[in-house]
Amino acid sequence: MGVGHHEAAWRHPRTEPARLTDVRHYQDLARIAERGKLDSVFLADGVALHGNVAHNALGGLEPLTLLSALAAVTDHIGLIATVSTTYNEPFHVARKFASLDHISGGRAGWNIVTSAGEAEAGNFGVERPAHAARYARATEFLEVVRKLWDSWEDDAILGDRVRGHYADIGKIHAIEHAGEHFAVRGPLNTSRSPQGHPLLVQAGSSEDGKEFAARYAEAVFTAQQTLAEGQEFYADLKGRLAGYGRRPDELLVLPGISPIIGSTEREALRLEKELEDLIIPAYGLAQLSHMTGIDLTEDALDEPLPDVPVETEGAQSRRKLVVDLARRERLTVRQLLGRLAGGRGHRVVAGTPEQIADQIQEWFLDGAADGFNIMPPILPAGLSDFVDHVVPELQTRGLFRHEYEGRTLRDNYGLARPASQYAARQELVVAG
Amino acid sequence: MGVGHHEAAWRHPRTEPARLTDVRHYQDLARIAERGKLDSVFLADGVALHGNVAHNALGGLEPLTLLSALAAVTDHIGLIATVSTTYNEPFHVARKFASLDHISGGRAGWNIVTSAGEAEAGNFGVERPAHAARYARATEFLEVVRKLWDSWEDDAILGDRVRGHYADIGKIHAIEHAGEHFAVRGPLNTSRSPQGHPLLVQAGSSEDGKEFAARYAEAVFTAQQTLAEGQEFYADLKGRLAGYGRRPDELLVLPGISPIIGSTEREALRLEKELEDLIIPAYGLAQLSHMTGIDLTEDALDEPLPDVPVETEGAQSRRKLVVDLARRERLTVRQLLGRLAGGRGHRVVAGTPEQIADQIQEWFLDGAADGFNIMPPILPAGLSDFVDHVVPELQTRGLFRHEYEGRTLRDNYGLARPASQYAARQELVVAG
Repeated sequence: MGVGHHEAAWRHPRTEPARLTDVRHYQDLARIAERGKLDSVFLADGVALHGNVAHNALGGLEPLTLLSALAAVTDHIGLIATVSTTYNEPFHVARKFASLDHISGGRAGWNIVTSAGEAEAGNFGVERPAHAARYARATEFLEVVRKLWDSWEDDAILGDRVRGHYADIGKIHAIEHAGEHFAVRGPLNTSRSPQGHPLLVQAGSSEDGKEFAARYAEAVFTAQQTLAEGQEFYADLKGRLAGYGRRPDELLVLPGISPIIGSTEREALRLEKELEDLIIPAYGLAQLSHMTGIDLTEDALDEPLPDVPVETEGAQSRRKLVVDLARRERLTVRQLLGRLAGGRGHRVVAGTPEQIADQIQEWFLDGAADGFNIMPPILPAGLSDFVDHVVPELQTRGLFRHEYEGRTLRDNYGLARPASQYAARQELVVAG
Repeated sequence: MGVGHHEAAWRHPRTEPARLTDVRHYQDLARIAERGKLDSVFLADGVALHGNVAHNALGGLEPLTLLSALAAVTDHIGLIATVSTTYNEPFHVARKFASLDHISGGRAGWNIVTSAGEAEAGNFGVERPAHAARYARATEFLEVVRKLWDSWEDDAILGDRVRGHYADIGKIHAIEHAGEHFAVRGPLNTSRSPQGHPLLVQAGSSEDGKEFAARYAEAVFTAQQTLAEGQEFYADLKGRLAGYGRRPDELLVLPGISPIIGSTEREALRLEKELEDLIIPAYGLAQLSHMTGIDLTEDALDEPLPDVPVETEGAQSRRKLVVDLARRERLTVRQLLGRLAGGRGHRVVAGTPEQIADQIQEWFLDGAADGFNIMPPILPAGLSDFVDHVVPELQTRGLFRHEYEGRTLRDNYGLARPASQYAARQELVVAG
């Protein structure tokens, strides 16, 4: 979101960085996405000022507040907000997503992240938490949030004005959670929302991240550079679901793709070059240093990436991707910066609408993707180009919907609405 | 908000309790309030299911997400959300309000509360905090939030695309707060919002509450039953401002009033009686028991309120108000329930639009109020009656605006926009 996924987007003449905090800019984007029958808009987020604001358009809006304002002007598009489990309380998070789900008529999704960075830890007065500790907390956090979402059964509200019975309190449950990280009595003070559970999304590709996704996630955003890597990730993740009693189709794999679209290939490459020319090396170097853990200076620009260990504490899957990319394509640091500037590790594809559609088709039919996270380099132009030119091409090929399947995000993703765990328990008692 | 401030509102034929989680209901209310040129809508809140949901319409929406959705369909009305300092982190709260302030074009307000209840503590795995500890935390919380709101100076964003300078990082400040309750590095990752600081509102009337209000609040919601009590509270609070280097007009006192409006006095009294007849004694008794700390049963309904100590740990100002009311008017428990059902301790006035306007005029001109928190017994009908009949009467008397004074909530409240404390510091250096 913002003014585009290319790090130099804000300098391109077809963007308006002054609109970074203008809600109408995001409402326009959501309406364009809805015109294109896209499933959802997704807001990445962190709880610190990341990156060098001297050279990039940072300091935008908070996702949950923003998505409510988008809900008010749209009817179908899903609304997915990133919220961390690391510095939050499950009661607050469960309630805000339940509320967004009510407000949007069942279109809320939660991209669950943990917060790894120094900068984020510094805003909450704690030491940077270890990788395993973050996932242990996240796991218990999810258990609590799901209990809270289930704490009102679907038919708890009677609304009997004559007798004065508003709710059947036998169907509103204290959750009495008492675990290692959280003690939460419940119930939630917002009734069960249209989707039952807002959609659960996850994006970490570390070993812990994949296990977490296999257990809880219903959609996974992932950065994969090559078809082979995409297929491997897809098969790996889908294969883990059975371990949690889930079917492969209960989780959708959505690799990121940044499409640089031109009406001719030459026009697309010209746009790509325009953006590359606007890159500020100092900005990208700082990002790359942060990502790889290597202190890189301008002197290193035309050298290959120095040797670094690529696996540390089982985490940092993005670091491995970046180092592998540099090695595989024998890129200098400057060339690597150009590749990363487009999508921070996500795949960048420049071409005509047909060429973009070819790439999407290949990954979709060859077992690397159930869908895609479309990350236009510049906004709104890159999104309207995608919606007006790539979507019709995909529709013609029979690969994309002409109309939304339903009213909720779950309907459009083809995912079931979960039952309340408390209702299920009651039914078992009745059946037994 | 909800379906009305009378506890039996949900049973009245002119409300629709099924709309409790329907955002369009609240959007309708906000539009009616805006049609009446009211300053703001205000959402009370707590982080537990308070009251007995068996007999009242509870379990509605979370304020911050809801207000963003109201911002999207209104242009002038202020949007005030209640958020507690007790179980939150200042970084999250500062950011969400800054975001709402951007989204609404400068119409955000924060009603600052602390969380005293057992039920709330139980949702966050802690013991119920002591009164003084809650206010100590709240005070430091406010200091941190204000620093974060100031961390981007007004002119920090350059947006210089040609040179590639997005922001002047000399004007974006780490706050480096290190206190007893919080350590927060900053800066905020949302740029400075239209109002600089979203409006600060407070509602506690205990001794600590009044000191906190005198130090930070720009508007105070309060429950006062009689003109004399209202005048005393008003003078008391205004008198405390000088101690914090503030002028009396930097804080607005807004007593609550629940107007039961009829085109004749008889019609108003009939509506009041209709609502009284819908009261469920068991519900009110539980609320009153909670409020007074006395265990009251149905046997006690036609007796006077038992003797209780009215001052405990310097807090519980609402308890004192309730006990004083029962004593002063020699009410039985049943009569007291009727009085409290309308406004939970706020003043209930039944009458014609002219009679309501008389009451408002008296308190306003006689030093008990700068404005009022209008709490209609049933919604939306009670609000549209107020807007269509009481507001024109007040306008005719020259007591209320015909048009909004400005675009921000501060403009309409007549309050100044605060400068960034970091900018001020820099100017002092330059001046020195």
